[in-house]
Amino acid sequence: MTSIESVVRAAPAELDAMRHALEIARRGPAKGPNPRVGCVLLSAAGDVLGEGWHRGAGTPHAEVAALADAAGRGTSTRGATAVVTLEPCNHTGRTGPCSEALLAAGVARVVVSVPDPNPVAAGGAQRLRSAGVEVEVGALADEGRALLGAWLPSVERGRPFVTLKLATSLDGRVAAADGSSRWITSEVSRHHAHDLRAEVDAIVVGTGTALVDDPSLTARNAAGELQRQQPLRVVVGHRDLPPHARLHGPGGELVHVRTHDPARVLTELAAREVRHVLVEGGPTLAAAFLAAGLVDEVHAYVAPVLLGAGRPAMADLGVTTIGDAVRLTTRSVIPLGPDVLVVATPDRHIDPHSTTEEH
Amino acid sequence: MTSIESVVRAAPAELDAMRHALEIARRGPAKGPNPRVGCVLLSAAGDVLGEGWHRGAGTPHAEVAALADAAGRGTSTRGATAVVTLEPCNHTGRTGPCSEALLAAGVARVVVSVPDPNPVAAGGAQRLRSAGVEVEVGALADEGRALLGAWLPSVERGRPFVTLKLATSLDGRVAAADGSSRWITSEVSRHHAHDLRAEVDAIVVGTGTALVDDPSLTARNAAGELQRQQPLRVVVGHRDLPPHARLHGPGGELVHVRTHDPARVLTELAAREVRHVLVEGGPTLAAAFLAAGLVDEVHAYVAPVLLGAGRPAMADLGVTTIGDAVRLTTRSVIPLGPDVLVVATPDRHIDPHSTTEEH
Ligand SMILES: NC(=O)c1ccc[n+]([C@@H]2O[C@H](COP(=O)([O-])OP(=O)(O)OC[C@H]3O[C@@H](n4cnc5c(N)ncnc54)[C@H](OP(=O)(O)O)[C@@H]3O)[C@@H](O)[C@H]2O)c1
Ligand SMILES: NC(=O)c1ccc[n+]([C@@H]2O[C@H](COP(=O)([O-])OP(=O)(O)OC[C@H]3O[C@@H](n4cnc5c(N)ncnc54)[C@H](OP(=O)(O)O)[C@@H]3O)[C@@H](O)[C@H]2O)c1
Repeated sequence: MTSIESVVRAAPAELDAMRHALEIARRGPAKGPNPRVGCVLLSAAGDVLGEGWHRGAGTPHAEVAALADAAGRGTSTRGATAVVTLEPCNHTGRTGPCSEALLAAGVARVVVSVPDPNPVAAGGAQRLRSAGVEVEVGALADEGRALLGAWLPSVERGRPFVTLKLATSLDGRVAAADGSSRWITSEVSRHHAHDLRAEVDAIVVGTGTALVDDPSLTARNAAGELQRQQPLRVVVGHRDLPPHARLHGPGGELVHVRTHDPARVLTELAAREVRHVLVEGGPTLAAAFLAAGLVDEVHAYVAPVLLGAGRPAMADLGVTTIGDAVRLTTRSVIPLGPDVLVVATPDRHIDPHSTTEEH
Repeated sequence: MTSIESVVRAAPAELDAMRHALEIARRGPAKGPNPRVGCVLLSAAGDVLGEGWHRGAGTPHAEVAALADAAGRGTSTRGATAVVTLEPCNHTGRTGPCSEALLAAGVARVVVSVPDPNPVAAGGAQRLRSAGVEVEVGALADEGRALLGAWLPSVERGRPFVTLKLATSLDGRVAAADGSSRWITSEVSRHHAHDLRAEVDAIVVGTGTALVDDPSLTARNAAGELQRQQPLRVVVGHRDLPPHARLHGPGGELVHVRTHDPARVLTELAAREVRHVLVEGGPTLAAAFLAAGLVDEVHAYVAPVLLGAGRPAMADLGVTTIGDAVRLTTRSVIPLGPDVLVVATPDRHIDPHSTTEEH
């Protein structure tokens, strides 16, 4: 995408407007089925005519919100430039196509940060160009991609983006010999992990973890209170949960997927418009997702604890010799109180649905 | 020690002189049986009369070197102040007692950073005081302790200071299922570990590692050349090494300690004036040292690699439940290329020989 950026012709005022569009886009929901999008309308002289952002599924797209804002101010958008963080859609979903709305409003030029990777919604740039509108794609593309978070790779890959969380001792154990695992990591790490839960659409565990740990899988704030939006709670495996499992208590909707196939889990979640999944283990499920090439990012919380025995963090991956190890690229190393969080992405991304390369 | 510092009465010129003494002390060898010590002699007016540092076992102590320097400059040291990073010794070893040398030179005041923890050499301050010399102990004590590195805890504990090195995958494995372990960590980490080898007096491995990996256990520079000073190479366990083992090749002296008792290993090494030992594994030996409470510091190199099977980093520690885990305090987290180095110290230091608490 960055190669496109180098040939983008965007005026300084347009880049300023894009920065503002990226900023207001952040007011929209970070998770959920739809992306965060911002739009700023500029006059030929570079004055702001209107601005808007997408507030989530079922509400107007950013372009339509910006046009409504301009109309509310009583200004005409004929001959205007629309600066928008994501390529305008070209399909009729819950709202009409934005390409048509921009054409109807007489917009003469459109500056886009990120092209729409969605095969259903894409084509807006082409539709606009064929109607004689000037379209520039790729302005501040890195920032535009960053804004979209997991939504972008999720749409590119045609399945939810998968973050695998591990919380291990320094010698790679996730539970002591007797199965006890509370707590290996520190409170600082656990708060951090709760914040991540609040950012995802679904949390997934295997029946093993569900039965041994009886987790509630909720997103809580530092005071221990349930956050307003709760992720879907997903349990994978054939065994039933006991009727009094905490997973039946307060929290997000509980989904039990009776399969051992990680791809099927993701298909079921994609059908529920899930974009970002957090796999919280245990070792068997983690290994199944990794071996299937269905992990996009690993968050490994490593605590300064040695156990010498107990449950290893990762079940068999089919790796027998060092040359076949699953290698990752470290994205960041974050000290968290006594622990350290390593964020890394698997190097060999086996993903038949992928059309673009992440790294 | 720091509590002493608050009552130290040292003039600004004396603190400046101490800073300089700490600096010149670093010209001495960082490892070996003797500590690094620096000494600056000041006139009553605060002028530098002479300075000296200890160049290693068999050479004059810093105080004697400073007195010789002053003599060489033709200045009298009668009534002078000696500013010295470590309490002057009071015993006749390879050189005479420094306390007597200072008295003979007519020194009237001595400012010390760190008291000598060595039961044999200590008592210099007392000897000086009883001869009417003013002695202040504890000036810049933190810097003074830092200068001494492993030497200080080694003398305090009456045994070598033990650094345990681990090089693991993110899931806590030190070798794949077939035993291969080259390479889990990156070149950056391996260079870092070689620099650590160059800083210690001895490297210790179990026969298991010696037989499986056939390591050379040498300290090499980035170009792969042997560094000038090589640590002792120590193998622990009953099995013989094959005649063509790399451990018989170029490098430090090879010592085979046929025991399973880590304390006996340290006694043997202490007898060879070893102050700092690096235990490089494998998992069995690492666990034996940890379980015996004979690890002072852990250096864990963690690589962004997942194995899912293979040799766990740590053999049985007798820990069965999470409450009994060996907990450590993280001292630093150092990103090293793709890897991360966690330096941590065990919280419960079981050490019958210890008279002072480290943390
Ligand atoms: N420290 C941590 O962060 C952490 C996190 C999670 C778990 N844990 C620990 O992990 C332990 C549980 O480990 P676990 O491995 O049993 O848990 P798990 O991975 O959560 O569950 C394993 C179960 O998931 C089902 N499953 C789903 N997909 C599978 C597949 N592809 N292959 C095989 N089975 C599949 C199977 O159950 P069915 O037989 O029902 O089909 C299997 O027995 C507990 O001790 C827990 O405390 C620790
Ligand atoms: N990634 C890394 O950083 C790293 C580092 C080192 C090793 N490794 C791997 O670790 C594996 C070797 O593991 P290991 O555990 O066999 O190696 P080890 O700990 O080096 O050696 C174990 C042997 O040491 C002797 N020993 C000494 N003290 C003992 C005690 N207190 N209790 C029991 N035995 C004691 C025993 O040998 P005797 O029977 O001869 O008495 C025992 O079989 C290799 O695969 C190697 O690649 C990896």
